[in-house]
Amino acid sequence: MPTFFLPAAASVRRCLRRVLPLALGLLPGLPAAAQTAAPTITRLNPTNWWVGMKHHDVQLLVYGPQAGTLTYSINYPGVKLVKANTVENPNYVFLDLSISPTAKPGQVKLVGKKGAQTVTRSWELRARDNAAKGQGVTQADLVYLAMPDRFVNGDPSNDKFADMADPNADRANPFYRHGGDLQGAAQRIGYFKDLGVTAVWFTPVIENDQPLTDEGGNMRSAYHGYGFTDHYNVDRRLGGNAAYKTFVQQAHAQGLKVVQDAVYNHVGINHWTVKDLPMKSWLHQWPSYTNTSYRQQSVTDPHAAAIDRKVLLDGWFVPFLPDLNQQNPYVANFLIQHALWSVENFGVDAWRIDTYMYNDQPFMNRCNAALLAEYPRIHIFGESAVSNVVDQAYYVRNKVNFPFKSNQPGGLDFVLEGGMLAGLKEVGGKDVTGWDNGAHRVHQALAQDGLYEDPTKLVTFLDNHDHNRFLSEMGEDVAKYKIGLTWLLTTRGIPSMYYGTEILMKNFKNPSDAEVRRDFPGGFPGDKEDKFTAAGRTQAENDAFNFVRTLAQYRRTHPTLHAGKLMQYIPENGLYAYFRYDNAGTVMVATNTTDKAAALPTARFAERMSGYTKARNVLTGETLADLKTLQLPAKTAMVLELMK
Amino acid sequence: MPTFFLPAAASVRRCLRRVLPLALGLLPGLPAAAQTAAPTITRLNPTNWWVGMKHHDVQLLVYGPQAGTLTYSINYPGVKLVKANTVENPNYVFLDLSISPTAKPGQVKLVGKKGAQTVTRSWELRARDNAAKGQGVTQADLVYLAMPDRFVNGDPSNDKFADMADPNADRANPFYRHGGDLQGAAQRIGYFKDLGVTAVWFTPVIENDQPLTDEGGNMRSAYHGYGFTDHYNVDRRLGGNAAYKTFVQQAHAQGLKVVQDAVYNHVGINHWTVKDLPMKSWLHQWPSYTNTSYRQQSVTDPHAAAIDRKVLLDGWFVPFLPDLNQQNPYVANFLIQHALWSVENFGVDAWRIDTYMYNDQPFMNRCNAALLAEYPRIHIFGESAVSNVVDQAYYVRNKVNFPFKSNQPGGLDFVLEGGMLAGLKEVGGKDVTGWDNGAHRVHQALAQDGLYEDPTKLVTFLDNHDHNRFLSEMGEDVAKYKIGLTWLLTTRGIPSMYYGTEILMKNFKNPSDAEVRRDFPGGFPGDKEDKFTAAGRTQAENDAFNFVRTLAQYRRTHPTLHAGKLMQYIPENGLYAYFRYDNAGTVMVATNTTDKAAALPTARFAERMSGYTKARNVLTGETLADLKTLQLPAKTAMVLELMK
Repeated sequence: MPTFFLPAAASVRRCLRRVLPLALGLLPGLPAAAQTAAPTITRLNPTNWWVGMKHHDVQLLVYGPQAGTLTYSINYPGVKLVKANTVENPNYVFLDLSISPTAKPGQVKLVGKKGAQTVTRSWELRARDNAAKGQGVTQADLVYLAMPDRFVNGDPSNDKFADMADPNADRANPFYRHGGDLQGAAQRIGYFKDLGVTAVWFTPVIENDQPLTDEGGNMRSAYHGYGFTDHYNVDRRLGGNAAYKTFVQQAHAQGLKVVQDAVYNHVGINHWTVKDLPMKSWLHQWPSYTNTSYRQQSVTDPHAAAIDRKVLLDGWFVPFLPDLNQQNPYVANFLIQHALWSVENFGVDAWRIDTYMYNDQPFMNRCNAALLAEYPRIHIFGESAVSNVVDQAYYVRNKVNFPFKSNQPGGLDFVLEGGMLAGLKEVGGKDVTGWDNGAHRVHQALAQDGLYEDPTKLVTFLDNHDHNRFLSEMGEDVAKYKIGLTWLLTTRGIPSMYYGTEILMKNFKNPSDAEVRRDFPGGFPGDKEDKFTAAGRTQAENDAFNFVRTLAQYRRTHPTLHAGKLMQYIPENGLYAYFRYDNAGTVMVATNTTDKAAALPTARFAERMSGYTKARNVLTGETLADLKTLQLPAKTAMVLELMK
Repeated sequence: MPTFFLPAAASVRRCLRRVLPLALGLLPGLPAAAQTAAPTITRLNPTNWWVGMKHHDVQLLVYGPQAGTLTYSINYPGVKLVKANTVENPNYVFLDLSISPTAKPGQVKLVGKKGAQTVTRSWELRARDNAAKGQGVTQADLVYLAMPDRFVNGDPSNDKFADMADPNADRANPFYRHGGDLQGAAQRIGYFKDLGVTAVWFTPVIENDQPLTDEGGNMRSAYHGYGFTDHYNVDRRLGGNAAYKTFVQQAHAQGLKVVQDAVYNHVGINHWTVKDLPMKSWLHQWPSYTNTSYRQQSVTDPHAAAIDRKVLLDGWFVPFLPDLNQQNPYVANFLIQHALWSVENFGVDAWRIDTYMYNDQPFMNRCNAALLAEYPRIHIFGESAVSNVVDQAYYVRNKVNFPFKSNQPGGLDFVLEGGMLAGLKEVGGKDVTGWDNGAHRVHQALAQDGLYEDPTKLVTFLDNHDHNRFLSEMGEDVAKYKIGLTWLLTTRGIPSMYYGTEILMKNFKNPSDAEVRRDFPGGFPGDKEDKFTAAGRTQAENDAFNFVRTLAQYRRTHPTLHAGKLMQYIPENGLYAYFRYDNAGTVMVATNTTDKAAALPTARFAERMSGYTKARNVLTGETLADLKTLQLPAKTAMVLELMK
């Protein structure tokens, strides 16, 4: 989830002109004319389904003026209308359908009657295709996180649409849409492959037909994608459903996986269900606008007050992102079915979940279970921005007898990120050898892995679209940058890298997070520089790019880094050594975090090095003929493939 | 355990002149004369036992020149000699005795024969008395930690003994013994009672007949007590066994409990078994002197290397404290029996365990189980100086499926200490309202309590003999000091307070830990000031003393603070509120950590305050007639007993 400026009071008031009617539970009144007009069906969600899904009891949301006043029937072999659920708003009905395993693909005719009136709509039952989907991401992968609006503009004709709530696109304005799209990203599949990336994760692609919003005095577009307005449409400005499907197909054809960024906690203020609420309890509503506290510990704390928990979970993330009530079964079904539909329809491989810790956790378990039942290999990893292992473990499968047991397979490893950044900042400094400093921070984060059922399923990172860019956090010290990337690409976990890291993109979130979301140079018409090509990169950028590529390609082709165990030694004198190992081989990573060259005797590492006599330096290609003592240059992480 | 300066190389070498023969596994050779002289028995450990103990299979250590060459027999109804275990050193034999529940108290005659020689020794089987013992400490208690050598000198005749390895006593030297003793402490039982203390914990009282040792260039005595030389004798300079027994009896008579400080990890270099090792494996021995790494995470880390674990556990704490091998069953039996003997003989109520995380953890579980089987109410709390909840939980009963499961009921709460100190240092400063600052540090430490089986059994503290004194950590700001003590005495856990805190004793460990172990003024002959009396205290000291007494006496007499649940609210704007509550009542603690007076509306706390209309301010005695908004002075923790 992007971090937002909490809006100033005036801006809250403006926003509340829209929100307050919801907050007070007042359903928008329908014009008298509409109430007497013939009932109509304008939407069906999910927009289609498939035969042969494990999830075959589908709740079909039917929407349209007075659509809830019709009496429905279905006459299609193998499809049974079990129950029609009417709700507070007569424009909605939720039809419980049961689809038999023997049902055939085809057009299901939905018939709604009211007196002499008959409304019919087709709803497609498709055959499932054999395309790869839900392949998961594992330690064998390197995930590349990109914001599609800021990456490559492949189709300038879709940059903006006059009929959308925000009709702007302007690359000169850091807060506006810039025109990047999925067609553009598809043009760079070769770039990903060359770099050693094996999976692409885009910030959300779902339609965000949101107005500009006033955040911290700046009018901002929803280019980040976290305010859905129609779950069943990919945003037109990114290329729509067709471009997304094409991207996945082309990626798969070249062995690249796709991670979808999902948001359950909230929708955009312009979500169509928010404009005409099915029922008051569709959203979390409060007597007056209530923001979430962002204080996750009220969930894990056994001493927490109920109100603190409620504010965290049911408070709104920001005024323009209404908070969904996932305890409402209609909401839950809507979201779960959308998740399944997305994987089946687009063929994505893994599922990143935004603002994970703000969701109703029993709902999250249901949703995760549904995805895993249908796609057993899919990987699910949520964003829970916590600061300690206890809290991080709470939201994934863990070894703790918490009152609530999460079934989430993975999660983003914020604790390791914090340890790596803090430790790397000390590299070369006088405190780096301190008791808890430097590499100790990494060692100590990993040393708490005993709480996770499987720490190798955590997705590791050094920065993302909500954090300062890694290079800037490192004070633009490329030596620190290289150590960090070496750790990221060799220690346990599924590494993810934020776009542009490989070409030394930098910046702090101050003055705004737009600074860390700049356009990838070369991705946009008229760009003077093209950092996608070696010729367009400076020498320093090529050095960084080649460094990442060397490590990423090594990682991609060496199974010991995919499935080997981790053994780490307690750092001593600023030197930190760890190993990945299995029956096939052993990779040693030896880091000198000090500002002086150091000799590292290896006798202490006999448990892992015994039997090995030489090694290949993965980053330089050199062979080390003697392993008794390693000569480590200052501020360097050496990656050694041990050889007998 | 006291923290020691790691000795400089020269000092290690001096020490190793003694240690190295052990380290090399060379048992001291006996003089030829001794080897041919008649075998003799000079020691039996345990020195006695009792009938009717659950632990009735006793391993009796028999020691003396060639004592291991005798053939032993026992002819005493109900006592069976099951097996005589000879070991490498002929001066030892370990006799496995089985004592029947029907055995009667009396003198068991142990007969050893070798050819025509007969050696006999009496060993007493006593009846158990009905005196209170193993009463435990709970949240109903306030534990007072004192160093007996530095507290009160009740018998100047026992300050030093010319026949001991360190024959010195000199109050002018901060590193030498000062003469305090148990007779002196016994004179202050009334002081403890008046203050509201309910339990006294002394740093170890067992004989430390250690030489002066060179630490950091200073010759230091073993006044701290952590280097045992004879488990079955209380140090003569503290008054010996008789004075200890008398202290416990007098304390019990006045309703005060006693906590014994136990050390399993090591003994003193002068321990009698170290001077004449039973076997090489009695100690952890290394090819050359090896210090522990003090790096506990090699135990909890699932990725740890075996050698790191071994150095932590088997390395020596310092050169003059040989590391016991608790995996040696003779060592294990020796230590477990001593623990049981101590509780039964002296009647102590709780058991504090030094350097807990350096011990073999399966051994610790055996030892804890033996104590709990015999004394089900006893409390056991170890010292594991860790920095996060995962590591802290590892060493106590917890809710984590760690590969090793500790059975320790309690532990010292280093994590909460760290949170309180760091948070309190920020009180009144500009960062105190920061996202993770001030009271948030306390809130977040407690919010991780879900890992413990029972966090109320943790022993809480603000400082101890190894840390900077609390007042100095607070920059001598009495407002911070009062907030800290208020938290300590009202939040969950069993509070402990270091001696002198109540009279504003201060100091940092720099230049040495002797600075935080100064004599209690008034406890020693010739003292110009007597801080044990109101007349001897300054106004500021009396203010502090009365503050502690008011809170401690309130705590002592209010069961809601003994067994009530904790509910804490997320701090907002530097204001932190929590509640202890049960059916009998509700105590609210509202802290203003900012440097400005603040109004705290209480509507948010309805879950705990509903039904209450007024309150008594415990610290001032005032009644608050209206609870809608609390007026909190700057830098203040208010304790309110809510009333209907």
